[in-house]
Amino acid sequence: MQIRPKARSQARMENLAVVLVETLYPENIGSAARACANFGVEELILVRPKRLDSEKMRAMATKAGGPVLEKMKVYERLEEALAPFHYVVGTTARLGRQRKVYETIREAAPRLVELSQKNRIALVFGNEKWGLTNEDLYHCHTVVTIPTTEQASLNVSQAVVIILYEIFSQTAEISLPKPRLATIEELEPMYRLLQETLEAIDYVPHENVVLWMTTIRRFLSRLDLTAQEVRIIQGFCRNLLWHLKEKTPK
Amino acid sequence: MQIRPKARSQARMENLAVVLVETLYPENIGSAARACANFGVEELILVRPKRLDSEKMRAMATKAGGPVLEKMKVYERLEEALAPFHYVVGTTARLGRQRKVYETIREAAPRLVELSQKNRIALVFGNEKWGLTNEDLYHCHTVVTIPTTEQASLNVSQAVVIILYEIFSQTAEISLPKPRLATIEELEPMYRLLQETLEAIDYVPHENVVLWMTTIRRFLSRLDLTAQEVRIIQGFCRNLLWHLKEKTPK
Repeated sequence: MQIRPKARSQARMENLAVVLVETLYPENIGSAARACANFGVEELILVRPKRLDSEKMRAMATKAGGPVLEKMKVYERLEEALAPFHYVVGTTARLGRQRKVYETIREAAPRLVELSQKNRIALVFGNEKWGLTNEDLYHCHTVVTIPTTEQASLNVSQAVVIILYEIFSQTAEISLPKPRLATIEELEPMYRLLQETLEAIDYVPHENVVLWMTTIRRFLSRLDLTAQEVRIIQGFCRNLLWHLKEKTPK
Repeated sequence: MQIRPKARSQARMENLAVVLVETLYPENIGSAARACANFGVEELILVRPKRLDSEKMRAMATKAGGPVLEKMKVYERLEEALAPFHYVVGTTARLGRQRKVYETIREAAPRLVELSQKNRIALVFGNEKWGLTNEDLYHCHTVVTIPTTEQASLNVSQAVVIILYEIFSQTAEISLPKPRLATIEELEPMYRLLQETLEAIDYVPHENVVLWMTTIRRFLSRLDLTAQEVRIIQGFCRNLLWHLKEKTPK
């Protein structure tokens, strides 16, 4: 059996669906479709949308969000839309008062990644004016929020983007491969050439060469030099030394 | 001197600026202004915008983004726009080929939080069609990317939202306060009442009461009950017991 650290499980984005309740502007539906496509979510569900203008939706969905729009389903009741799901996540911008929200999406995301392995998850978003009603929230297993500054509120499609991004980027595999650094074998000739160059312009104090070069080495090490960058520095030193020799009166 | 764990420093969002290069659609400028307001960024800078339609910009900025739009500056050259900044972050959706990007925004964010304490940071975004050119990237200290599925690309204002959100939410203080759980003193009467209720309906096996009640306790403990929820369960048990007594033939 392979031991797999928890953070390495990847969300099964195809098990997520975005549910938009009473959305007012078709542009936001289109933007949400694009966001779904960006993060591998195939299912977009509308509950009582106010306006379905397919031209406006398509313009914002762009080519990427097209297939999501085509598969999109529309329901009259939220409960009906949620029927096939195992776990329902409500979203809210409003904190305090009656709304008891104890999780940010960042806190909830690792759990949602785990749940997504075997369960279908609905992410429910309210409309542009008042968000989700208390009646909508009644159907949710949990309610999450996105931290912003006070008084500010996110556009519904921006909220969709952040929620999907958080779940998508929970996997550790998302780190980009770091460049291969230069080996010691590649670095040492560079440092020798650098010392030679600094000596040629009298920039190495005679009393403590090693300490001086250590300072230089610490400074260059901080850069995590690649083999290519090492070659650039060497080339620079060689050209400089050549020009110095040319200028020296024979 | 106070020892402060690194993760607890909060980004100084007022030291960040969003720089949009050659943006095509005024709607995206407005959305970016709203995103700035949502995460406490006051400065939005445009370089050679294609169209400045203030009505469309304002509609998308909404009331929250208004002050950001009013302060907005427009430049002809990127270098000029970047002059007062200490650190420049380019953004790109394109990976591979000549673009050497070694950081996601999630990886870069902790460093940007540290830098923001004493430095002004410019976050540079390219336009809707081709992103930042190689010439634009020449001015950047680092280039970050937002991981998405293949073939997909984010809208420029969605990219602004995610980048600002990542930096804003780097602070540990962003966790929401967890509810105060019920104390043992509050829990135990509930468990006693629950046992009484289960016994009243013959749902406790006589041979192993403790094991049975332990199962019940484990199950309810998983819920992290609050004092209010404990009272609800107690009320339910009391009403149930009362009705059972009523129904019992005297």
